Amino acid sequence: MRSLHHFSLQPQSRRVRIQLREKKLDFDPIAEKPWERREGLLALNPACETPILVEENGAVIAGAYAIGEYLEEAYVEGPLLGRSPAHRAEVRRLVAWFDGKFEREVTQNLLHEKMVKRLLGQGGPDSGAIRAGKANIRVHLDYISWLSDRRNWLAGDDFSLADIAAAAQISAIDYLGDVAWDQHREAAEWYARVKSRPSFRQILADTWPGTQPPPHYADLDF
Amino acid sequence: MRSLHHFSLQPQSRRVRIQLREKKLDFDPIAEKPWERREGLLALNPACETPILVEENGAVIAGAYAIGEYLEEAYVEGPLLGRSPAHRAEVRRLVAWFDGKFEREVTQNLLHEKMVKRLLGQGGPDSGAIRAGKANIRVHLDYISWLSDRRNWLAGDDFSLADIAAAAQISAIDYLGDVAWDQHREAAEWYARVKSRPSFRQILADTWPGTQPPPHYADLDF
Repeated sequence: MRSLHHFSLQPQSRRVRIQLREKKLDFDPIAEKPWERREGLLALNPACETPILVEENGAVIAGAYAIGEYLEEAYVEGPLLGRSPAHRAEVRRLVAWFDGKFEREVTQNLLHEKMVKRLLGQGGPDSGAIRAGKANIRVHLDYISWLSDRRNWLAGDDFSLADIAAAAQISAIDYLGDVAWDQHREAAEWYARVKSRPSFRQILADTWPGTQPPPHYADLDF
Repeated sequence: MRSLHHFSLQPQSRRVRIQLREKKLDFDPIAEKPWERREGLLALNPACETPILVEENGAVIAGAYAIGEYLEEAYVEGPLLGRSPAHRAEVRRLVAWFDGKFEREVTQNLLHEKMVKRLLGQGGPDSGAIRAGKANIRVHLDYISWLSDRRNWLAGDDFSLADIAAAAQISAIDYLGDVAWDQHREAAEWYARVKSRPSFRQILADTWPGTQPPPHYADLDF
């Protein structure tokens, strides 16, 4: 059986879990704590980072970038990267936006400060970082609203890896209760459509020890 | 004529410049200062980040991830991503290593502190960050030596985007004089082979106002 080494807090792990389910590829999820630097994990990926996909034939694909592209090349059914070069460029621009810019400006400031630092025993959250993260997420939600107003999905007509990368990041922040959905109705409507996809069900069922999500977290009609 | 909006300090811009020259694709380089948030740049990429490729037909491809993949899809001569799915996974794993892990652990601590903060008027370098960057780069150079000892190029038999991404990051740090090459001879031999490629010539000719590179920077036989 194909397996995925993942860390459920991590947006890039969530992104691959959603992509695998969108493509109807079964996998055995293996929960990892990358900071413990388990030898078996290091042997699979010397960066000791999740996600890592291990195919039934033993092939190891490490990292969300490599896995994202590999799945589209190896399993062409249900394409998530776009049909034309221009559409693929737009999907990849937005994937990099959420995995890079959103990750640095929002996720590092909120998820890392509130949850990951505690797991790593690095002390309490920095209040300046939390403030920055909460200010920054508004700009990203405005951008999602702007895109949603003009397009069916974030990168164009079709649901794509861009929607998955965005929703994977936002779902982790939403678990913390840090998304002011009432001030971003168009982004909320887009997110409700992503949440209602069967590929998202497992993400909404995740729980993390010591932190409960807000009531709307798993509500498809929030 | 094809054009590339770039920022010469930025490893991801260097990576695209090298890739274009490896593929023998002519382009007009347009130097940008992304922090000035020029309207023309914002119109091309709402993230206001370089690199941005503009094709002769007007197609805009924004970001090193999208450009790197686009160039391989659109111009199949001189492939830089690997021939098999396993090789491509390895190339992309290493591209993410250098664009992600190296960037966070080394480039942000050295290039950002020493050069970018000054350009942005954000004050002097943080000495703790400089120390961390100098300690971290040793681990990365050891890893390059380890790979070079086992493989012809970083990702396998063929020169690839992994070598380009690694050399683009390292060249920016080398400009600052922060690479202790004498302690990493195998990595130095790999880098000398990359430097001697015609695609690298323009990178070695770059100069940045107020900072001179060390004498070995552009020396192919250092």
